Amino acid sequence: MSKVIKGGTVVTADLTYEADVKIEGGVITEIGPDLSGDEILDASGCYVMPGGIDPHVHLEMPFMGTYSADDFASGTRAAVSGGTTMVVDFCLPDPGQSLMDALMRWDNKSTLATCDYSFHMAITWWGEQVFNEMETVVREKGINTFKHFLAYKGSLMVNDDELFASFQRCAELGAMPLVHAENGDVVASMSAKLLEEGNVGPEAHAYSRPPEVEGEATNRAIMLADMAGVPLYVVHTSCEQSHEAIRRARQKGMRVYGEPLIQHLTLDESEYFDKDWDHAARRVMSPPFRNKMHQDSLWAGLQAGSLSCVATDHCAFTTDQKRYGVGDFTKIPNGTGGLEDRLPMLWTYGVGTGRLTMNEFVAVTSTNIAKILNMYPKKGAILVGADADIVVWDPKRSKTITAANQVSTIDYSVFEGKEVTGLPRFTLSRGKVMVEESTLKTEEGHGEFVARQPYTAV
Amino acid sequence: MSKVIKGGTVVTADLTYEADVKIEGGVITEIGPDLSGDEILDASGCYVMPGGIDPHVHLEMPFMGTYSADDFASGTRAAVSGGTTMVVDFCLPDPGQSLMDALMRWDNKSTLATCDYSFHMAITWWGEQVFNEMETVVREKGINTFKHFLAYKGSLMVNDDELFASFQRCAELGAMPLVHAENGDVVASMSAKLLEEGNVGPEAHAYSRPPEVEGEATNRAIMLADMAGVPLYVVHTSCEQSHEAIRRARQKGMRVYGEPLIQHLTLDESEYFDKDWDHAARRVMSPPFRNKMHQDSLWAGLQAGSLSCVATDHCAFTTDQKRYGVGDFTKIPNGTGGLEDRLPMLWTYGVGTGRLTMNEFVAVTSTNIAKILNMYPKKGAILVGADADIVVWDPKRSKTITAANQVSTIDYSVFEGKEVTGLPRFTLSRGKVMVEESTLKTEEGHGEFVARQPYTAV
Amino acid sequence: MSKVIKGGTVVTADLTYEADVKIEGGVITEIGPDLSGDEILDASGCYVMPGGIDPHVHLEMPFMGTYSADDFASGTRAAVSGGTTMVVDFCLPDPGQSLMDALMRWDNKSTLATCDYSFHMAITWWGEQVFNEMETVVREKGINTFKHFLAYKGSLMVNDDELFASFQRCAELGAMPLVHAENGDVVASMSAKLLEEGNVGPEAHAYSRPPEVEGEATNRAIMLADMAGVPLYVVHTSCEQSHEAIRRARQKGMRVYGEPLIQHLTLDESEYFDKDWDHAARRVMSPPFRNKMHQDSLWAGLQAGSLSCVATDHCAFTTDQKRYGVGDFTKIPNGTGGLEDRLPMLWTYGVGTGRLTMNEFVAVTSTNIAKILNMYPKKGAILVGADADIVVWDPKRSKTITAANQVSTIDYSVFEGKEVTGLPRFTLSRGKVMVEESTLKTEEGHGEFVARQPYTAV
Amino acid sequence: MSKVIKGGTVVTADLTYEADVKIEGGVITEIGPDLSGDEILDASGCYVMPGGIDPHVHLEMPFMGTYSADDFASGTRAAVSGGTTMVVDFCLPDPGQSLMDALMRWDNKSTLATCDYSFHMAITWWGEQVFNEMETVVREKGINTFKHFLAYKGSLMVNDDELFASFQRCAELGAMPLVHAENGDVVASMSAKLLEEGNVGPEAHAYSRPPEVEGEATNRAIMLADMAGVPLYVVHTSCEQSHEAIRRARQKGMRVYGEPLIQHLTLDESEYFDKDWDHAARRVMSPPFRNKMHQDSLWAGLQAGSLSCVATDHCAFTTDQKRYGVGDFTKIPNGTGGLEDRLPMLWTYGVGTGRLTMNEFVAVTSTNIAKILNMYPKKGAILVGADADIVVWDPKRSKTITAANQVSTIDYSVFEGKEVTGLPRFTLSRGKVMVEESTLKTEEGHGEFVARQPYTAV
Ligand SMILES: [Zn+2]
Ligand SMILES: [Zn+2]
Ligand SMILES: [Zn+2]
Ligand SMILES: [Zn+2]
Ligand SMILES: [Zn+2]
Ligand SMILES: [Zn+2]
Ligand SMILES: [Zn+2]
Ligand SMILES: [Zn+2]
Repeated sequence: MSKVIKGGTVVTADLTYEADVKIEGGVITEIGPDLSGDEILDASGCYVMPGGIDPHVHLEMPFMGTYSADDFASGTRAAVSGGTTMVVDFCLPDPGQSLMDALMRWDNKSTLATCDYSFHMAITWWGEQVFNEMETVVREKGINTFKHFLAYKGSLMVNDDELFASFQRCAELGAMPLVHAENGDVVASMSAKLLEEGNVGPEAHAYSRPPEVEGEATNRAIMLADMAGVPLYVVHTSCEQSHEAIRRARQKGMRVYGEPLIQHLTLDESEYFDKDWDHAARRVMSPPFRNKMHQDSLWAGLQAGSLSCVATDHCAFTTDQKRYGVGDFTKIPNGTGGLEDRLPMLWTYGVGTGRLTMNEFVAVTSTNIAKILNMYPKKGAILVGADADIVVWDPKRSKTITAANQVSTIDYSVFEGKEVTGLPRFTLSRGKVMVEESTLKTEEGHGEFVARQPYTAV
Repeated sequence: MSKVIKGGTVVTADLTYEADVKIEGGVITEIGPDLSGDEILDASGCYVMPGGIDPHVHLEMPFMGTYSADDFASGTRAAVSGGTTMVVDFCLPDPGQSLMDALMRWDNKSTLATCDYSFHMAITWWGEQVFNEMETVVREKGINTFKHFLAYKGSLMVNDDELFASFQRCAELGAMPLVHAENGDVVASMSAKLLEEGNVGPEAHAYSRPPEVEGEATNRAIMLADMAGVPLYVVHTSCEQSHEAIRRARQKGMRVYGEPLIQHLTLDESEYFDKDWDHAARRVMSPPFRNKMHQDSLWAGLQAGSLSCVATDHCAFTTDQKRYGVGDFTKIPNGTGGLEDRLPMLWTYGVGTGRLTMNEFVAVTSTNIAKILNMYPKKGAILVGADADIVVWDPKRSKTITAANQVSTIDYSVFEGKEVTGLPRFTLSRGKVMVEESTLKTEEGHGEFVARQPYTAV
Repeated sequence: MSKVIKGGTVVTADLTYEADVKIEGGVITEIGPDLSGDEILDASGCYVMPGGIDPHVHLEMPFMGTYSADDFASGTRAAVSGGTTMVVDFCLPDPGQSLMDALMRWDNKSTLATCDYSFHMAITWWGEQVFNEMETVVREKGINTFKHFLAYKGSLMVNDDELFASFQRCAELGAMPLVHAENGDVVASMSAKLLEEGNVGPEAHAYSRPPEVEGEATNRAIMLADMAGVPLYVVHTSCEQSHEAIRRARQKGMRVYGEPLIQHLTLDESEYFDKDWDHAARRVMSPPFRNKMHQDSLWAGLQAGSLSCVATDHCAFTTDQKRYGVGDFTKIPNGTGGLEDRLPMLWTYGVGTGRLTMNEFVAVTSTNIAKILNMYPKKGAILVGADADIVVWDPKRSKTITAANQVSTIDYSVFEGKEVTGLPRFTLSRGKVMVEESTLKTEEGHGEFVARQPYTAV
Repeated sequence: MSKVIKGGTVVTADLTYEADVKIEGGVITEIGPDLSGDEILDASGCYVMPGGIDPHVHLEMPFMGTYSADDFASGTRAAVSGGTTMVVDFCLPDPGQSLMDALMRWDNKSTLATCDYSFHMAITWWGEQVFNEMETVVREKGINTFKHFLAYKGSLMVNDDELFASFQRCAELGAMPLVHAENGDVVASMSAKLLEEGNVGPEAHAYSRPPEVEGEATNRAIMLADMAGVPLYVVHTSCEQSHEAIRRARQKGMRVYGEPLIQHLTLDESEYFDKDWDHAARRVMSPPFRNKMHQDSLWAGLQAGSLSCVATDHCAFTTDQKRYGVGDFTKIPNGTGGLEDRLPMLWTYGVGTGRLTMNEFVAVTSTNIAKILNMYPKKGAILVGADADIVVWDPKRSKTITAANQVSTIDYSVFEGKEVTGLPRFTLSRGKVMVEESTLKTEEGHGEFVARQPYTAV
């Protein structure tokens, strides 16, 4: 049975043109004028774009004996409701745990996903076993990216020695390292000091990790990657300091990619000064929101190409979960939602304001990500043969974001009250219509794991 | 009658994949496995890439009562022999001359072109007539780019006032200004001083226009473009100073494009110190060759994306013509050749050394140019519907560049003695095979003018 | 008759130590403990510092048939009341006027000065006469600095050709060029456009000359100075763009000095949005006030040493004079006051906040200026043999700035309402006490011209 | 008994003037014309400057059971022979050793010094004892600077946690941290890899620690200092990467000082490629010599003020000692000589070439150092009351540097064959003539320890 998306304007990372798109067996089989098929999706007045890819989410992430609130079912449902058709989650081994064992747990969790997904593997400890299993992960498990935490001292953090060893291992395997770049020693020390001085509220979270602390870690990771001879992907680049390190490296010819989050692009540190503890705590994430000067830097980076993609770091905790940290900001679970809002927010604040072209919007939300993570053009493309992960984007639809109407299971939204113009008319995952305007037609378990090969060509 | 390029690997600005390419009526009609057609071109072991586009050439350019040596016939023959399938020339009105009249002259000159071409219009004087004719040029003549000379005082140069007026006019028309960025006042003053002091040889040409002089003019043009609200294209970016100004602007979100020449990427200022006057004079061009630090900067710019495309500024004068300047370097006609060497040189020194990926090679020699000049995907693409301007690139073929074997009509090559690996097996212009290895099958007059619309989407 | 400043702490650009200072015949004759003399000035609890030098004032400046409101009498009275013991004014020849004739006018105007003064000579037109007279100015008139306006098109502005010629002439004479750096062509064009569009109020003054316009002109002047082989002094550096150009140049080893004004360090562009026309118009000066990001840049420049001195550009017009520009912002006389507030404001916002050390305060208000303008250690020093231009600074005295109590003759203050802590207890001009706390003891005509030699050693 | 230096030109960090200088009791007692005294030193044709201060030497440094070849006797003899009148050595506690015990060893070693000296205390391990003893060191021992090694893993290196703790402790005590900035983890890993691959020669030492490795460590130390709220002094800044980090920090208002070595300013990495093992090994030091681009950066930093002082890191090992490392470059003792050559080399390559003024020469070799280390104006000044540490500099004297004639005890010189113009006629240590042209009149034990107070005013 074939579907045709009819009457729309195809917008890709490098083209804008009128065409119908035909889908059969989950892939795009024809692009051109006047196509016919068994089922017609009316795209008139709409842009037909590659579905969004969120390179950075944490669904059902283990935390203090419980889990982040959105699991693969609700998380991917939120994703498609906002036009995102693929997510990449992080497999997080416990200290000492086999990478394979951890991966099995993530495989199990992801069975209910509505849209496709892939994994980054985190290197949370180091040893011969990890060294060896990395090869299996790359060669047999379809994972070509390894995440490293320079922060979260005492739990996820690895030291420079381990980092450098892992980066060199990545180089051998054709894999790419990712880093959460904040100096964990300083964060730990500052946090202890703040608590000691009685600064226990959510605003102290921001004080504990200023921009210089992120810039330093980014700069260090870049040097290590350069010495190891691997490219580097810096997740959640939130500030000018980190961006500066990235573009300085790029200007020497190094292959470094920066990923601002939609939150950092549109929200600022004043959120932490809200008198309502809940309001502030719900925004606690690492790195924290920054001031507007940093926002300007991030937008300019997307315009100039010195920053490469936009993610969410979706890691949703309920207000109840956030309240674990009353009286001690270091116990507030780090993370915010945003999966369903990334595309509408970026369209509204990026394309709507003239900062980004539509093609750049597609590039930073989908195509660049697919290329960097080595799954282009299966994903991130409107091309014959590509997966039919498509969003039919209605630039006229608008809404006011509110937790009351959101798909994510948590009880608030960091974007509460924001008006967005530009929303999906249809979202398709491998040809299946998952969303039609406000109606969800998602199917648990439809999502499949996307294997990604090493030696990215980008 | 159909042609099929068979057995090759298609390489575009963002994809590398094995496929055959079918051509009918001058355009690509099918891309995929196992295609058949009336004529087969064997691409086994080869890369099938969009033909090169040279955004910056001067064919049969009027000069002191004579013309630059390569005309549209020989120049485009040289182009296709090296895999370039389109050139963009500069229409240069005389002071006071109607833009329309000048364009007619360029139309006449270009009738013998072997491959397709387009024009930039130069603004060499200013007045109400120019202001008005710019609209006609854009709306009726298919030209969306206007060149401005900040140097060549007393002939082509326009002052800041005129520049700003023209940039504002471009903004109204959706056109993009181009600049030759050197401070003409300083160059004139320095040249006079050097001559006065007895520095009359070709090396004094370089002394008269150091990098700071180019950097200043670039910086000034960027500010004017920013104030006028237009993007800007900086031709022949030769040095770190100019590149720095461009990337500083880009990092503020300004849309500025830099164009290094293959000469500046691979040759340096030591050429001017050759004891042979002819050797040095043949390399006289503006901006002059720079030192290796500047080369590093240009390569890094291509890697980082802060520089956008690679051109030649092909403006070939014979040794006899160069000798007009014996005893007075300011009379040496400015310009060098390179049209047929751009692709092999960039491949050898860029892809062969690991600086650039193959996809980046295609981007900077073809696709980026097509996008920036608003003729993508008609040009610069391997897509169904695109013009079949294609080079079938044999990465194993090699040669030593020598004037003795070159296609250009001049009697020397600035790349004399350079060994290149990577050469066309076939070059096709709108489906017609113009080159098969060393055999030229060019056809005078086959080339057509390519009209380009305003309001580039890039 | 001798005086001794007793019981204070001497603070110079590089030292802080307790000592008495003895003065005889207008110069310092002894520095040390337990000095005695005919008259004792009690400096207990105070800092004994070199009197401030304002390198940039316009007293009784001709304007539209009238003059700026503070003349040499009232202006220097204001100066000493705030601890400034020397000012440098600008001699402004009319177009075509002999530099000598202009200088005679300035000599005449300055006879009533209370404190010492010197002149910069402005190059407002170009020709053989100017070229020749520059030598006389330098060799016979004790002026080693030449001011150039890159803005004020149609009146003071010189073009690049003239600028470069003058810079080269400065190089020959051992003189240093100064520049008012804004692109006059753009300012003129933008101003016309704004007026045309009905933007006639004072806020449009700021719109007509954004930071990029200043940055460009600074960058251009630096290149010209570099090519001419002279150092360069950039007056009223107001923004990051201009500062960036200066520090980029300095980082190449070029000798470039930047002069932020106390106004730009402490006031911002929001002043222009005041609904009161008078309020806004009184703040109209060029360059205009900038946003806080630019303020941060200027302060950091003083801390890092990339900016060298702090001035006022004191050019006071009354509200009546400002009102010439009602209905046309281009007719509002450019200039603000500040001579008497520079030291207290910089102490309060610089030293008081911990941004600057006391020694840095002395450096940027006095010593650096004396060195750069080549009159150190006659001026700018607490050394035996130096002129006894001294301020005895009481770090505890405070006041609220208000026009009601100011010395300047104008009817308002741009610093109205600012509280300052740190004020002179005594100000001495060549040993004569001119100010004792709030009591003025100034003497018209006491001030002398300070001749400055070429070939600055700095 | 009094001495008068007669007929010279006094050159200080901010003045150049003709005067005699009178000395009594080891201090300067009078400066002025026509002074008389018991003994006259003829300074005609000479510059009378503050004696050099070398802020970074290692005399009799313990190493593998032996010591660096120059001890305090021969080292300070070498110093004064070249116009340096004070050195600052590093007290290096063993792991676990009391700072007090270490200091006692250094006190013992230094008894034979010919000129004055001071100590930096190194933090080579961390614990409550160190934390507590730091206070004693600062309050009772006259040491206000603490050195930290980010390299030398397994021996001197401290980790980020310790570094940050120590920096915070410095902040409390008003002390300033110093850092040897190279990433020790990377150096160790690279060294092991190089050895493994058979790269055992001295050139591999340079490969093991490229500029990025130094830049990273500098950047990290700056962030830590910023977070701790202390200024920072970066020893042996050798490359653009480190310099860039320093000036970026300074441009944010941070107080960071960079110290290039005379070796890095004048020698380059090509030395390591000499076929003679001894030649290369004698140049092994950390950081290693860099290429000429880095030299340009260092010189420009001295000109712009973004780098503050010039040192030697004098740590002289004989060829025999260097040969410990035959077959394993990691065993070559790190260090070169230079104490006696710093001033002549910097004068020749700095002042002689026009890069630096004479005043800047004094600043970077003496006055800036005295200020930053908080011993100005006792040291680093030609002022009444200052110690009579003076060099009478003959700008016409010249020599060719050769080990054959050097004062240092080692058997070679890294500056062998360099011609220098500008040498001491006299060197005085607290008024005692130690050197008269080529004649040494040094006195073992004349040197005294210089106590330095916390809370530097600079
Ligand atoms: Zn993270
Ligand atoms: Zn995350
Ligand atoms: Zn040109
Ligand atoms: Zn050209
Ligand atoms: Zn001005
Ligand atoms: Zn002024
Ligand atoms: Zn060291
Ligand atoms: Zn050392």
